[in-house]
Amino acid sequence: MTITAPQGFRASGITAGLKASGKSDIALVVNDGPSAVAAAVFTTNRCKANPVLWSEQVMAGHKASAVVLNSGGANCYTGPEGFQNTHASAEKVAELLAIGAIDVVVCSTGLIGEQLDRDKLLTGIAQAANELSDAGGPAAAEAIMTTDTRSKQVLRESAGWCIGGMAKGAGMLAPALATMLVVITTDAQVDAVTADRALRQATRVTFDRLDSDGCMSTNDTVLLMCSGASGVTPEEGEFTALLTEACHDLAQQLLGDAEGAEHDITIDVVNAASEDDAVEVGKAIARSNLFKCAVFGKDPNWGRILASAGTTRAAFDPGALDVAFNGVWVCRDGEPGEPRDKVDLSERAVNITVDLKAGTESATIWTNDLTHAYVHENSAYST
Amino acid sequence: MTITAPQGFRASGITAGLKASGKSDIALVVNDGPSAVAAAVFTTNRCKANPVLWSEQVMAGHKASAVVLNSGGANCYTGPEGFQNTHASAEKVAELLAIGAIDVVVCSTGLIGEQLDRDKLLTGIAQAANELSDAGGPAAAEAIMTTDTRSKQVLRESAGWCIGGMAKGAGMLAPALATMLVVITTDAQVDAVTADRALRQATRVTFDRLDSDGCMSTNDTVLLMCSGASGVTPEEGEFTALLTEACHDLAQQLLGDAEGAEHDITIDVVNAASEDDAVEVGKAIARSNLFKCAVFGKDPNWGRILASAGTTRAAFDPGALDVAFNGVWVCRDGEPGEPRDKVDLSERAVNITVDLKAGTESATIWTNDLTHAYVHENSAYST
Repeated sequence: MTITAPQGFRASGITAGLKASGKSDIALVVNDGPSAVAAAVFTTNRCKANPVLWSEQVMAGHKASAVVLNSGGANCYTGPEGFQNTHASAEKVAELLAIGAIDVVVCSTGLIGEQLDRDKLLTGIAQAANELSDAGGPAAAEAIMTTDTRSKQVLRESAGWCIGGMAKGAGMLAPALATMLVVITTDAQVDAVTADRALRQATRVTFDRLDSDGCMSTNDTVLLMCSGASGVTPEEGEFTALLTEACHDLAQQLLGDAEGAEHDITIDVVNAASEDDAVEVGKAIARSNLFKCAVFGKDPNWGRILASAGTTRAAFDPGALDVAFNGVWVCRDGEPGEPRDKVDLSERAVNITVDLKAGTESATIWTNDLTHAYVHENSAYST
Repeated sequence: MTITAPQGFRASGITAGLKASGKSDIALVVNDGPSAVAAAVFTTNRCKANPVLWSEQVMAGHKASAVVLNSGGANCYTGPEGFQNTHASAEKVAELLAIGAIDVVVCSTGLIGEQLDRDKLLTGIAQAANELSDAGGPAAAEAIMTTDTRSKQVLRESAGWCIGGMAKGAGMLAPALATMLVVITTDAQVDAVTADRALRQATRVTFDRLDSDGCMSTNDTVLLMCSGASGVTPEEGEFTALLTEACHDLAQQLLGDAEGAEHDITIDVVNAASEDDAVEVGKAIARSNLFKCAVFGKDPNWGRILASAGTTRAAFDPGALDVAFNGVWVCRDGEPGEPRDKVDLSERAVNITVDLKAGTESATIWTNDLTHAYVHENSAYST
């Protein structure tokens, strides 16, 4: 149990035949209430998939009674027929659950530009509705996987209420392959304004700081559903903190399962003039293919870190930067510091610290190395 | 002959022992005049190498009588001692040629953060001065190579005057490995203002539109030296056109020798509202690792192109885009168009056309695919 651990939720995951692999491919999550409060963040990509276009309309009402998710096709750039497939999915769920279609969020993941088989989709949704249960969380988490090697789930408990979650993919605003989809459930009593504010705060410092390969998806969705079934109304700060913990946990699971990665890289940018500066520098480093190849090769090539920092507008003196790999300060004041050969990059976890010496703000960005396996997996995805 | 093809230039390339490989590593190019007019563009990276910091001062006077270039070390993030090495190089050239040090441009390429051996550097410069000849262009072009598999040279001739050039690296504002260095010579009579304007115009549509791996170097330099020895003063438009041709030729040579690449990709963005929009969309596509992996895998994955376009601020309707691979319009009006299997990506040259349907402007961006060989080469560079 995870998304079904909070009271008021049922879920299922079934095989509709959308995936060539024959693995499960449709997940359904239902909020039985009493509250239907929901919040969501979507991809900022302007080329949005049909399910995102639909779900943005749903979320205008700040509530959702169900979410149906399919793998096996992103339903993006599939034209009016694709949008009709999304709409038909929501209608089918609504009919089966006796709710309104406008309360049904839809998520899709898979290849762009391929039409989903509507018969398989609708038959699968009917089966998913039949199999809904309060123990269905793990099956739902399995059904949304694409290139994930394992399902991602989380549970965080507080006094009388809890938060569950599931995720697939490898990045937010920068996922490898098609998409990051996240569904988070809670039985806390939370109003719509609080839910929205808490979700934006939590994603800002977790999923938004995960940059696996710099590529932004057309389908990214993070959905928070609040049943209120516990009868407990937590303080906003407490709720936000636990939600952030749950998002952090899922983000780290995504990082650890990124395509082909051999290293999980944590980039701490410290003593920045502003948090935005720290994020900008961290992301510039996280997007340097040269840096990411160097980590794959276990090479503490700090010059590539400085070259990336130099592409940003962040406040710092280029001649004053310090850089550490796993605590070894290989660059001090823009000059060679401790010997490179003191750095050991044989472990999966790699920590980079960049000291901008320009203020007191900081931020952490997570990324992966660039490997042969990444190239292999992404050169052979649709063929 | 190439950079020594124009009248008034001598050059040499020698082995100073800066490279572990034992290959030649110092190039010297001298402009014997009568004019010493020069123009240059440098990396926009804020973390600039010592030779760039020095050469920017030289170019403040809009003239240069010589340029000395070394491979075997970028002389970047090497502190005051590194700057002194650059300064000593210029002083040594000045002493040997009886010119001012402030008329000597210095370029370096190689690993960041490693100190050059000053004795080898200065001894090598003396040898390079001894070997200067009007047939020394090819030797100079050899001496600036790092991971290049072949030297890059160009010659363009007009009525009574000509332009020669040499280059190393694989990108401008986005080179693979350390740096792109380009030296262009001409015996045309060109004033400083014209030289500067022509060089900026030529690089803007050639080197600036080459984006091999999205990584901006600390050392990039393009230097134009004008001897005036032909006695011919071409029209500015004619000069700019021939200079642009020479830059285009060198840029294509850089593209064709990019690290580990198996495909040269030309991205034509057409019918944009502005040239800037076309460039922004083209560069976003060129920087998508997912797209670049797909081309390596000979997969016409147009969804990755649209997902990249969607990250830009360019004016277009996401539902109206057309995309072609080698002339096959696999996406029409944001929907699947001609069948993917009509696309053949077995040849090295791949042409992508993206029709924004938002205006009449266009731009072409060049990039490469992302391959196993790229990962291999860049994970093993400094170790």
